[in-house]
Amino acid sequence: MHKLPVGVLGASGYAGRELCALIEGHPSLELAFASAHGQRGQTLRVGKRNITFVGTEEAPLGDAALVFSALPHGASLEWVEKARSAGAKAVDLSSDLRIGNGRSDVPYGLTELRRSQIIGADLVANPGCYPTAILLALAPLASAGLLDSSSSIAVSAASGVTGAGFTPRPDLLFAEVSEDFRAYGVGNDHRHLAEMRALLGELGTNNDLIFTPHLLPIARGILATIVVRLNTDLKSPLAPWLELYSNEPFIEVSATTPSLRDVVRRNTVKISAAKAENTRQPTLIITSAIDNLTKGAAGQALQNANLMLGLEETAGLPV
Amino acid sequence: MHKLPVGVLGASGYAGRELCALIEGHPSLELAFASAHGQRGQTLRVGKRNITFVGTEEAPLGDAALVFSALPHGASLEWVEKARSAGAKAVDLSSDLRIGNGRSDVPYGLTELRRSQIIGADLVANPGCYPTAILLALAPLASAGLLDSSSSIAVSAASGVTGAGFTPRPDLLFAEVSEDFRAYGVGNDHRHLAEMRALLGELGTNNDLIFTPHLLPIARGILATIVVRLNTDLKSPLAPWLELYSNEPFIEVSATTPSLRDVVRRNTVKISAAKAENTRQPTLIITSAIDNLTKGAAGQALQNANLMLGLEETAGLPV
Amino acid sequence: MHKLPVGVLGASGYAGRELCALIEGHPSLELAFASAHGQRGQTLRVGKRNITFVGTEEAPLGDAALVFSALPHGASLEWVEKARSAGAKAVDLSSDLRIGNGRSDVPYGLTELRRSQIIGADLVANPGCYPTAILLALAPLASAGLLDSSSSIAVSAASGVTGAGFTPRPDLLFAEVSEDFRAYGVGNDHRHLAEMRALLGELGTNNDLIFTPHLLPIARGILATIVVRLNTDLKSPLAPWLELYSNEPFIEVSATTPSLRDVVRRNTVKISAAKAENTRQPTLIITSAIDNLTKGAAGQALQNANLMLGLEETAGLPV
Amino acid sequence: MHKLPVGVLGASGYAGRELCALIEGHPSLELAFASAHGQRGQTLRVGKRNITFVGTEEAPLGDAALVFSALPHGASLEWVEKARSAGAKAVDLSSDLRIGNGRSDVPYGLTELRRSQIIGADLVANPGCYPTAILLALAPLASAGLLDSSSSIAVSAASGVTGAGFTPRPDLLFAEVSEDFRAYGVGNDHRHLAEMRALLGELGTNNDLIFTPHLLPIARGILATIVVRLNTDLKSPLAPWLELYSNEPFIEVSATTPSLRDVVRRNTVKISAAKAENTRQPTLIITSAIDNLTKGAAGQALQNANLMLGLEETAGLPV
Repeated sequence: MHKLPVGVLGASGYAGRELCALIEGHPSLELAFASAHGQRGQTLRVGKRNITFVGTEEAPLGDAALVFSALPHGASLEWVEKARSAGAKAVDLSSDLRIGNGRSDVPYGLTELRRSQIIGADLVANPGCYPTAILLALAPLASAGLLDSSSSIAVSAASGVTGAGFTPRPDLLFAEVSEDFRAYGVGNDHRHLAEMRALLGELGTNNDLIFTPHLLPIARGILATIVVRLNTDLKSPLAPWLELYSNEPFIEVSATTPSLRDVVRRNTVKISAAKAENTRQPTLIITSAIDNLTKGAAGQALQNANLMLGLEETAGLPV
Repeated sequence: MHKLPVGVLGASGYAGRELCALIEGHPSLELAFASAHGQRGQTLRVGKRNITFVGTEEAPLGDAALVFSALPHGASLEWVEKARSAGAKAVDLSSDLRIGNGRSDVPYGLTELRRSQIIGADLVANPGCYPTAILLALAPLASAGLLDSSSSIAVSAASGVTGAGFTPRPDLLFAEVSEDFRAYGVGNDHRHLAEMRALLGELGTNNDLIFTPHLLPIARGILATIVVRLNTDLKSPLAPWLELYSNEPFIEVSATTPSLRDVVRRNTVKISAAKAENTRQPTLIITSAIDNLTKGAAGQALQNANLMLGLEETAGLPV
Repeated sequence: MHKLPVGVLGASGYAGRELCALIEGHPSLELAFASAHGQRGQTLRVGKRNITFVGTEEAPLGDAALVFSALPHGASLEWVEKARSAGAKAVDLSSDLRIGNGRSDVPYGLTELRRSQIIGADLVANPGCYPTAILLALAPLASAGLLDSSSSIAVSAASGVTGAGFTPRPDLLFAEVSEDFRAYGVGNDHRHLAEMRALLGELGTNNDLIFTPHLLPIARGILATIVVRLNTDLKSPLAPWLELYSNEPFIEVSATTPSLRDVVRRNTVKISAAKAENTRQPTLIITSAIDNLTKGAAGQALQNANLMLGLEETAGLPV
Repeated sequence: MHKLPVGVLGASGYAGRELCALIEGHPSLELAFASAHGQRGQTLRVGKRNITFVGTEEAPLGDAALVFSALPHGASLEWVEKARSAGAKAVDLSSDLRIGNGRSDVPYGLTELRRSQIIGADLVANPGCYPTAILLALAPLASAGLLDSSSSIAVSAASGVTGAGFTPRPDLLFAEVSEDFRAYGVGNDHRHLAEMRALLGELGTNNDLIFTPHLLPIARGILATIVVRLNTDLKSPLAPWLELYSNEPFIEVSATTPSLRDVVRRNTVKISAAKAENTRQPTLIITSAIDNLTKGAAGQALQNANLMLGLEETAGLPV
């Protein structure tokens, strides 16, 4: 069968490499080019073959039916626009086009919540990794109007170090991360918060959202633990998720608390919820786990690309 | 100088071994015996010498000025009472005598908050590891009446695996814990919650307390991340802690978010607090870190023993 | 297509679970039963379905075309014989039938070296994990007569903890293994040595074989580092491996030193060799890496089963 | 008591930081300055106080009784000479002055083997971390003439990542090192080999020395596993070490195989030896463990400095 050519910009980082590997195993796509600024000519082993990086400037954008940009925030938009001008569709994995970060006209690629806007689209802004885990966990409550509007949503989330990118920062060296655990950016109003507030706002929820990210001494995975107060007691704490996500191939709703192992190297979100016992106000604790490089980045980008190109949504994705 | 003899019951577990090591380096204490059920006659290397375990039934309780019990919950109380009958003072590291777990007449050994009751006491109930990190973080707000009484306190905390004890459970094997992160007991109303609610109640705080523990793929350390809504805005978010803990040798209050590395192998609690930006209600995020085996168990037990025996509070404790 | 039914005895351990997962993804096999002594009725999640363990005594051996035994050494032989009596072929993953351990008439399942004996066989003894990595590395030199017969072969090998099995031993707890590295059984003449000596002897090599295993703080993978003195200088140090293994689908020979990451979750052996510079005698350092659960156990067992059942050797195996 | 001022050049790396921490706890030394190229003005937390780095050019060399240089190989010699010109004694932790690397007139600071040259010396070249572990393990056999001169010495050694320095190299990032294990520089004749050959030569041993280093996914520690053939059988395999090292405060000889945990954060070398069973030639397997930052770098540097300054050899060193 003829395969559709796709390109990857910024292919030397963790998300870019993951994209190349997923494309390599995709039944209907083939890699037209992979660019890596500053590593032109170097090769990346993907499965049984080697990919040779081109410089970003040399990437034959017009040869691709769709271009994935895994370039850094701020640097991506320019290249996404060039890809579009060259006639390619584009999925931007950076924050440059995400809701809450300046643009609202580009479909937001949280696939399960925005599928109708993504099918056949020419350009999609792929969500951040933390927002993917957190928004899919909160959406059933938000869209059903179950959240107590006067209370905060308290989110504590922890990510493996690949979430910080393939950047040789001293604080990401093995000996600085191992045997440690720490929160970062505590209280700061960074871009992930804006993205989450924007989507929750679209779902009619304007609660204070308190988000604290942590760095885990592991390579891959995000676990979000979310405390919410409800305006009513739920008989079955899983019901909102089971209803909204009953037909979703990449969402598992379970009474068992998810573990990172359940989701690593899969494009799956695993969500659980439990009532807090013996509280005066009805309170739920929701846990949500993803692989930050798969459903949190490259996997979801491919899921979106499948829909944009008229392919099966699950094609080439590990479940 | 003559050293005071002390004994350790349940010395083969993580807390018990830590106690033996701390006693070995203490300027005024010496180890009279160390018991380990089922490992009688085995030896433990502590610094430059070997300690030989006796069976618990053979422990010469009356030879000790003070006995530490690191026996399991449920099994400890009986031996603490025997030690008291034999004329020894006792520190119980189990939950058997802790507030909120059935007894309220025994001094609760959260040293910084209950010092006057502990000095010279004959019997002290040593706090749990999670409650130590969380209660010392919350006490300044609770005692100053700064918490918004209608809101929940959301605590997400993560512990290294030694917190689960030296028990050969399949789920604690290396290959089951590494590269993973998971919450456990989500929503359950277990003994740590009762202990925390009881102390907060004594401080006049009855907010819903939502506590979610997590298992970290590291050996030692607890980090608690706590979200609270205040009834007033604070000009300086660290002020309540700086005021209450200004003279505490084992509490560090800092604008820098604590990291487990800051506290591992020390008897120190490191606490920080930051305002959540751009919220409608004044909200603080407090982070608190301890070593679960030192300040969370053996270190605090020794801190209490020092006060019970009329020694310097900091004697033999790593800062 | 009709699938052949196969059974797994001892399915709750690491090798047994890996076998169940590989069978689940195999194009021509299906799982007839999975037994687990003492866990009868419990379920194992494999991909998207749950497998329920039967007791070993209840396993319908005769329903399977082939039975894999991942039972412990010593306990396996009896069940392998029962499976054979019931008409099933059998692959024994224990040491009970391996060369050097008492039997020499059963084909030794080091597939690449014994392929002709394995094709169509009814019973195969699957090699140990260390021997697989080490013997495939040494065979080209041994069979070509290149080893200096008066010198020792010095093997230092390190294994991830799953090599020790899914056994709740205190020394395998996370907090006992992490941040540590140690040799074990130093100098001892254990069963792996007998197995390796027996096969090397069949290849005409009787050098002293000095083998030191180490425990790595990782879950999966074995790396063997082997020092040998040659009786002649090689122009190209990789030539013996490139020649013998040129058509092998599961052996990669490379000038690049293998890393455990190159082989984890694959049925591949990656081998490299380099001359030691500035020595008086021609000396090679060979490095060989496998995943102990895949090529070192379940993967190779399936590779053998494919040949025994007349299937494609690579069917269902990750490369 | 008056303390002697000492300085540290290159204080921001792992060895430099360890030196600052050890000096901070030393009873007779105090830190006069700590330099860090490119981090001038930044502070390092050491115990309870902060150290502010000066630029190397600004370091008041003459204020120190002794200067430690933890500067990179190649850059260190110049500054060691400046320190000497300014009247300070010096310990060079780089390879610039080590035997086998160009100079042989400077005392080689493998303390236990060169003590008489180090006492009162003005300048000492501190050994490399691998050579420390390996040479102390081999010296008793070499100096007693027990090694079979026609055989190779095969050394497989593994180091924690701090051995590679505090350098933001992509291959040292947490996600690149965790769950991996690999050899590096296989067969290469690098500076550590020259250093080891030179000292063994001084001890009368010229066997081929085959050295293969590996990178461990841990922060600290080196374990060397050494295979040697003897020219005679030993009744007691530990005898050579027990004899030579009977009075050494920092060497532990034991029948128990050393584990990295036994030595981490201590200035101790732990050595064991066992006969290989059932070999034709008498063969020993020696295992030797150190903390690469303590006995392998900063600890041994301080041990040497103590002797150079007329202090107790063990002062300020953790055992």
